[in-house]
Amino acid sequence: MSKLFVIGTGPGDKDLVAPKAVAAIQSCSDLVAYGLYLDLLGNVCDGKQHHDLPLGEEIKRARLALDLAASGKTTALISSGDIGIYAMATLVFELLDMQLQGKEEHPEWLNVEIEVVPGISAMQAAASRVGAMLGHDFCTISLSDLLTPWQTIEKRLHACGQGDFVVSFYNPRSKKRDWQINAARDILLQYRPDSTPVVLGRQLTREDESITITTLDKLDAKDVDMFTLVSVGNSESRHIANGEKQWVYTPRGYSKKL
Amino acid sequence: MSKLFVIGTGPGDKDLVAPKAVAAIQSCSDLVAYGLYLDLLGNVCDGKQHHDLPLGEEIKRARLALDLAASGKTTALISSGDIGIYAMATLVFELLDMQLQGKEEHPEWLNVEIEVVPGISAMQAAASRVGAMLGHDFCTISLSDLLTPWQTIEKRLHACGQGDFVVSFYNPRSKKRDWQINAARDILLQYRPDSTPVVLGRQLTREDESITITTLDKLDAKDVDMFTLVSVGNSESRHIANGEKQWVYTPRGYSKKL
Repeated sequence: MSKLFVIGTGPGDKDLVAPKAVAAIQSCSDLVAYGLYLDLLGNVCDGKQHHDLPLGEEIKRARLALDLAASGKTTALISSGDIGIYAMATLVFELLDMQLQGKEEHPEWLNVEIEVVPGISAMQAAASRVGAMLGHDFCTISLSDLLTPWQTIEKRLHACGQGDFVVSFYNPRSKKRDWQINAARDILLQYRPDSTPVVLGRQLTREDESITITTLDKLDAKDVDMFTLVSVGNSESRHIANGEKQWVYTPRGYSKKL
Repeated sequence: MSKLFVIGTGPGDKDLVAPKAVAAIQSCSDLVAYGLYLDLLGNVCDGKQHHDLPLGEEIKRARLALDLAASGKTTALISSGDIGIYAMATLVFELLDMQLQGKEEHPEWLNVEIEVVPGISAMQAAASRVGAMLGHDFCTISLSDLLTPWQTIEKRLHACGQGDFVVSFYNPRSKKRDWQINAARDILLQYRPDSTPVVLGRQLTREDESITITTLDKLDAKDVDMFTLVSVGNSESRHIANGEKQWVYTPRGYSKKL
């Protein structure tokens, strides 16, 4: 039986990688991943055959991982964060589904045993660094309209506003997509106050991490890039300061009982 | 400086606990946690002073953790999953906020250095065990109306339906709350098909794990208890079978490019 591990390695800090992910990588001969992710993992990747493909080549990367595993090589397809959240895992199953429907010509893929190993996602890293931003109901919205029509994204932004969910924006900006985050802000401002806390987490848990706490009215694309996770509080989220230390949390409502 | 770690230890499997969480626990003299969580962690907890309080005593538990840390004992407040997601972290900051507002009489709490360590949450464990349920925009809703009015929960259920988010229900049922999950189902059925895939994950990643894949119209409170995580797909989520192996994934839309 050939095996494909689909592994999320967390936000960046080696100490946030699950031992299960490390053990899975160790058991592999071949790794398919964007180079930077492997650099963050360090020497656990030594001696493995490394297959890199540029960002944007996601479909090729998923195919390659299935092909390698089907050829008998124990293989890991790796991404940072949780590979099940806006990442490569879903693409592996989309390809498998196409094969099951007879729209691909890779019956050998069906013999691959697939195991997904989850990881800590960027929204969780951001929330933990500022306190407890995700303390109550929340949602995530990808602002990339490469695969999802902007109309669908816009519908979700309104739903997020109506439901008063804390929201984390993935893919908030890229070189070619610069207006979506400001459009998202403007929609949310129809539902929650200007003063709603916003957290911008860049390179979370990595050496060059930076975290900025601001307010919804001041959220601006100029402060956001493709390495930034943007989380916007709900109408009850609080930004507090204890001396120089700043925190953001979203209450669950215990204060009624305190 | 006294120190309080606020730690999530993941869904249950020891191999999904971040090394950062283990190291933090090792550095502590005192642990505040529900006993079961510590049993799952094993011998890393040996030799620590263990403070247990029954479920339902969340406020006392958070106070105790702050008190212990303020008294100079390096302390960990521990929960399973991600302690920042529907768990104890937000309560610590809610108490700190009360103190900053002068509504508590514990100025010593303000001297406690707090560090939050995130963990893998149940929705991620469930998604990974069935494939890639969280492959596109999703939300989480707690169905506990102990602290949140049902009216607010209902509003979020409708927003979730309108936005076509994958949704994970936390606290779907307890001994005293048995109708909420069926009410949630009925609201979602107004927005998405009967055949929408639903995953019931019980005791995820633990020895007695059980996972059931069903459809939205068949979701019923009788199959859900307080150890169950319920995830409902969006209108595009797919349940596929490769021989005996069942998967659920939510596509991001790559199929247009395949």
